[in-house]
Amino acid sequence: MRGEIITIGNELISGRVVDLNAWYAAGKLTASGLVVSRVTTVGDDFEPVSKALREALEHSDFVIITGGLGSTDDDMTNEIVATTLKRPLCLDEEMFELIKKYVKDTGMEMSPSYEKMAWMPKDARLISPKGNVCGFSLVENRVRLYFLPGVPEQMRYLMDQYVIPDILLRSETRPVLTHRVLKVYGMGEPGIAQALKDLPKKAKNVIMGFYPNFPENHITLSSRGEDEPQVTGEVVALEKEVRALLGPHIFATGNETMESVVGRMLTGRGLTVSVAESCTGGLVGNLLTNVPGSSTYFHGGVTAYSNQAKIDLLGVSAETIEKHGAVSDQAVREMAEGIREKFKADIGIATTGIAGPDGGTEEKPVGTVHIGMAAAKETVSGKYRFLGNREQNKLNTAMMALDWIRRYLNGDPFLSRF
Amino acid sequence: MRGEIITIGNELISGRVVDLNAWYAAGKLTASGLVVSRVTTVGDDFEPVSKALREALEHSDFVIITGGLGSTDDDMTNEIVATTLKRPLCLDEEMFELIKKYVKDTGMEMSPSYEKMAWMPKDARLISPKGNVCGFSLVENRVRLYFLPGVPEQMRYLMDQYVIPDILLRSETRPVLTHRVLKVYGMGEPGIAQALKDLPKKAKNVIMGFYPNFPENHITLSSRGEDEPQVTGEVVALEKEVRALLGPHIFATGNETMESVVGRMLTGRGLTVSVAESCTGGLVGNLLTNVPGSSTYFHGGVTAYSNQAKIDLLGVSAETIEKHGAVSDQAVREMAEGIREKFKADIGIATTGIAGPDGGTEEKPVGTVHIGMAAAKETVSGKYRFLGNREQNKLNTAMMALDWIRRYLNGDPFLSRF
Repeated sequence: MRGEIITIGNELISGRVVDLNAWYAAGKLTASGLVVSRVTTVGDDFEPVSKALREALEHSDFVIITGGLGSTDDDMTNEIVATTLKRPLCLDEEMFELIKKYVKDTGMEMSPSYEKMAWMPKDARLISPKGNVCGFSLVENRVRLYFLPGVPEQMRYLMDQYVIPDILLRSETRPVLTHRVLKVYGMGEPGIAQALKDLPKKAKNVIMGFYPNFPENHITLSSRGEDEPQVTGEVVALEKEVRALLGPHIFATGNETMESVVGRMLTGRGLTVSVAESCTGGLVGNLLTNVPGSSTYFHGGVTAYSNQAKIDLLGVSAETIEKHGAVSDQAVREMAEGIREKFKADIGIATTGIAGPDGGTEEKPVGTVHIGMAAAKETVSGKYRFLGNREQNKLNTAMMALDWIRRYLNGDPFLSRF
Repeated sequence: MRGEIITIGNELISGRVVDLNAWYAAGKLTASGLVVSRVTTVGDDFEPVSKALREALEHSDFVIITGGLGSTDDDMTNEIVATTLKRPLCLDEEMFELIKKYVKDTGMEMSPSYEKMAWMPKDARLISPKGNVCGFSLVENRVRLYFLPGVPEQMRYLMDQYVIPDILLRSETRPVLTHRVLKVYGMGEPGIAQALKDLPKKAKNVIMGFYPNFPENHITLSSRGEDEPQVTGEVVALEKEVRALLGPHIFATGNETMESVVGRMLTGRGLTVSVAESCTGGLVGNLLTNVPGSSTYFHGGVTAYSNQAKIDLLGVSAETIEKHGAVSDQAVREMAEGIREKFKADIGIATTGIAGPDGGTEEKPVGTVHIGMAAAKETVSGKYRFLGNREQNKLNTAMMALDWIRRYLNGDPFLSRF
C-alpha cells in the first residue's frame, strides 16, 4: 500500500512552524510497513489544496490530509474538498452534537463558525474515537482519504487510534518491516563513516541509513520482505557487524535515550547519582529527571555558576580556583567529590566549562569543558573541546557527563585514558 | 516572485528525520518578502523527483531543491535532473578541483564516488561561496532552479550567502514585508481566540496568524505592500489593539525568549536570582543559563528532588513537609526563602510539583505544581494544575517560574491574586 501526505497551513509554507505532522504521519506509516511516496505542503488556499488533492488521487492507495478543519475563517478544507470532488457539504448530525456539547461544556456560545465544522463533504464518515477530537474519511476512486486536524496532539491521536489500524485492516499483503535504530555518541560523522566504510556491500536486503541528530548520530537498519525470519536475521547479522566496529559508542537503540539508559542501569544496581553543574546550568539534572521514576536514583544536585557558589556549596577550595581556575581538572574533581558527599550519593558527576560565546581565552577557548566523576573507589576527570554554539556546548557537556556514568557502570576501560 | 521548495530524501518521507530544510528555506524566503506556494518532499528515486521537478517548473519563478548531491549511491539528484531536463552531465572543472583539494586535505583517497559529485547537468552554474560547501543553479524556461545539499548547516549557509541575495537581485518589485511575532504565555488557545474575536475585521491589509508553540502561543502580524510607511503603520496599529486585549500575557516579541526577557530585566536593574528546583529538576537554571552573560545575574541554584535534600540544603522544615507535603504552598515558600538566603540573591524562585506519569493522588493529581518567589519585601506562592505529559509539565512549570520573575519586575499586580 502506497500513500501520500498533504499538510495544509500558511504557517507551514511560510516557515513559521516546523511541519511535525508530516514527520509524525510518515514515521508511523513507515513503521507500519506502509510506503509514503510523497509529502506535499500547501497554504490555506483553494487552488493549491485542490491541485494537491487531485494529484494525490492519481497515484495513491491512501492519502492523509492534515489542517484546515478548525472554526476560523482560514480553515476551509471541507469547502475545498466539496468543490474539488463535487460532493456538496452536508450537516453531519453526530459531529454537530459533539460541537454543541463542547461549546456548552466550555461555557461559550454557539456561533456559525462552530457550526461550520459540522458541514462535511457528502458521504464523509466522521472519525471520532473520543469526544471532541474529530476528523473524517472519504473513499474517492478507491483511494481512501483521511482528513485530520492540524493540531499535533489531535492529529497524532487520530493517526494512532484510527487511521493506521484502518489502513492496515484494508491492506492485503502485510510486508514484514524490521527497523533498528542504533544511537551513537562520542564519534563524529567522518569517524563513523570511516569505521563503517566496508559494510554497505555486505548489507544484502538491509538498507543502512545514517542520520546526524545533534549531538548524537543515528544508524538505521531497515529490511522489508515476505519472510519474517529471513528479514529479521539479516538485520540482526548487520547490527552485529556495526556493533563490532563502533563498540561502546553505541549507547542506545530504538526509543531509548542516554538518560533512560543511565536511569535503567542505576536502578538495576540500586545506585544513586548527584550532580554538580557549572556550565550546564541544570541541564544534566533536567535530563536525568525527564525519566519517570528518576527520584529513586537522583536525589538532587547543586548548580554552582559562580566561583563563590563552588566554594560555599560544593567545598571546592579557594586555592584550587585561584591556582587552576574554575575550568580545570582540579576544580571539577573537587566539585564531583563535594556533591557526592553532600548527597551521600554513590556517584557524583560534575561539569565546568566555557559555553560561550564570550569568556574564552587563548589557553581556555570557548567550548573547553571538564567533566569530573567521583565514586567510592576513585575520582576521574577529563577535558574536552566542543565546537558548537552556547546551547550545543551545554548539551554536549551534559550528554558527555551522562555518557561517563553509562561507561563507568559498563566497566568500560575508557576512563583509564584520563 | 513565487517559488516552490522540493526536499529530497528517504529519511524525510519515512519520517526518520524532521524536514528542517523546508522549514528553514520557507522561513527565509518569506522573511525576504517572497512567496512560497508549495513544498514537496520525495524520496531518492527517479520518478518522484522527476515529477516534482516538472510540476514545479510549471508554476514558479524559482525552485529550491535540497538533497541528493552527496557522494553515496543514493545521491542521484544530478542524474535525475540531467535526464528530466535533457541536459547531459558534464564535468565541472572548478568543482572537481574543490573535491580533489578536500580529499587531499582530509587524508582520504580519490574515488569514483567523489568524482561523481563534479558531474553536473549542462550549463549548471556552481554555487560555492566558500571551499567545500557546494550546490549549483540552472535556468530552465525562465525558472531559476537552485540545487543545495541536504546537510542542514551547508544548505543554510548557501541559502543565506547565495540563494536569497540572488533571487532578490532578479526580483523586479521588492514588496515591503512587515512581520511581527507576539509571544503569549499563560493564556490558552480558546481564551486568546475569545479575546481577539473582533480583531480580524479591523485588520485591513494585515494578516493575523495564530500558532500554538507549546507552552507558548504566537500571534503573527504580517503585511505586504509597496508603501512602507503605510504597511508598517497598519501593523503597528493592529499590534496596539492586540496588546490592549492580551495585556501582560504578551511576554516577548520576535526572537526574544522568556529567559532572554527575564535576563534583560534583571541585568537592567542589577538584580540577581537563584533557583530551588524540585519537579523541574534543573530546567529553570538550564533555561536561565541559555542566555549569554547570564552569570551576572544567576549565581546558581539547588535541585532538591528528595524531601531530605529540601530539608538539608534549603532549610525547609521537616514539620512543614510532614504536615503539608513537599508539594504545597508552605514548602515552596520555604524553598524560595531558603535559596534566596543561601545565595544572598535578590530573588529566590522555587518549584515543586508532580510531573507524572506516576505519583498523583486524588488530592494532588499529576500536574499539580506550586511556584514560590521570595524577594526582599515579601514571599508569594501559588498553585497550578497542568495537563500535559511529564516533560510538558516540567516545561510549563519552568516557564511559569520565569514568568513570575518577569511579572514581578514589571510591577504586574497579578501576584496580589495569590
